[in-house]
Amino acid sequence: MERGVESEPTRIMLAVNESSIKGYPHASISSRGAFEWTLQKIVRSNISGFKLLFLHVQVPDEDGFDDMDSIYASPEDFQAMKHRDKTRGLHLLEYFVKKCHEIGVPCQAWIKKGDPKEVICHEVRRVGPDMLVVGSRGLGPFQKVFVGTVSEFCAKHAECPVVTIKRKADEAPEDAVDD
Amino acid sequence: MERGVESEPTRIMLAVNESSIKGYPHASISSRGAFEWTLQKIVRSNISGFKLLFLHVQVPDEDGFDDMDSIYASPEDFQAMKHRDKTRGLHLLEYFVKKCHEIGVPCQAWIKKGDPKEVICHEVRRVGPDMLVVGSRGLGPFQKVFVGTVSEFCAKHAECPVVTIKRKADEAPEDAVDD
Repeated sequence: MERGVESEPTRIMLAVNESSIKGYPHASISSRGAFEWTLQKIVRSNISGFKLLFLHVQVPDEDGFDDMDSIYASPEDFQAMKHRDKTRGLHLLEYFVKKCHEIGVPCQAWIKKGDPKEVICHEVRRVGPDMLVVGSRGLGPFQKVFVGTVSEFCAKHAECPVVTIKRKADEAPEDAVDD
Repeated sequence: MERGVESEPTRIMLAVNESSIKGYPHASISSRGAFEWTLQKIVRSNISGFKLLFLHVQVPDEDGFDDMDSIYASPEDFQAMKHRDKTRGLHLLEYFVKKCHEIGVPCQAWIKKGDPKEVICHEVRRVGPDMLVVGSRGLGPFQKVFVGTVSEFCAKHAECPVVTIKRKADEAPEDAVDD
């Protein structure tokens, strides 16, 4: 158990995403909930004992959804879209990294593209964190059919202990599928 | 987020059970794994920031299994069996409480009777811990059919964040169903 010898910090990976609420370009309610839970309940005052690893997976299709009315007439148009996606992803990670710096918790953050559940499990294998924290909307079975749940997949397949943090009932937006 | 004000300790409930290996009257491999993981990865040196709550659920039938060859001729025989069950449960909890006292982590421990998965979820509702840690044998789907998995049920139904800690491959006993 090696008490006394203070070992390497506990590395906690947090999978974070943007809010799906229109006109609200910020971290999703469940991402922020998972982050705050990790700070309050796990890290607490022991800021040197932990390192937070933020992974944001961008979904190519979903990110293009806002561009339904755009016209792509040249390769440069796609380039502009890609640039905007990247900016949004960076903006999201900046939120978490900034908070960590304010508190003094060491952190790292990066962006990957693809299917979130597959990419998260792949990154867990690659990076080998001590645990993975994922937020969840806490949807009922009927809602899940349509939106799937990344958290359930990760809890089952990620090769490290996984904690799923459900959104509080009083934080749910008008449409429960939103986040 | 109330940093600075050190709030109430984080209350972590651990569901622990005895080893199913014959002639090995100790905590199961997965219970010990979950406990050591909690100390190493979560509590770390911040011993005053946490409180561990150990719940042991005794299964009436399973506990009677060793008594298959016994003859019960009077109410006192049952009394003796009940007494032995209680002693075993206390012996189990003593292991964890003693370790906590050595380290200095505040703890509490208690025994309940019934179906482990149901009782654990009921106790989570009653006690309201910040998270639940359960050990798991990490069985494949074929083995699960016969033994069920308490950890999966709790991860789905317990009304708090749940971490499932799988047993390390090199700690598995000869028969993977054993623990």
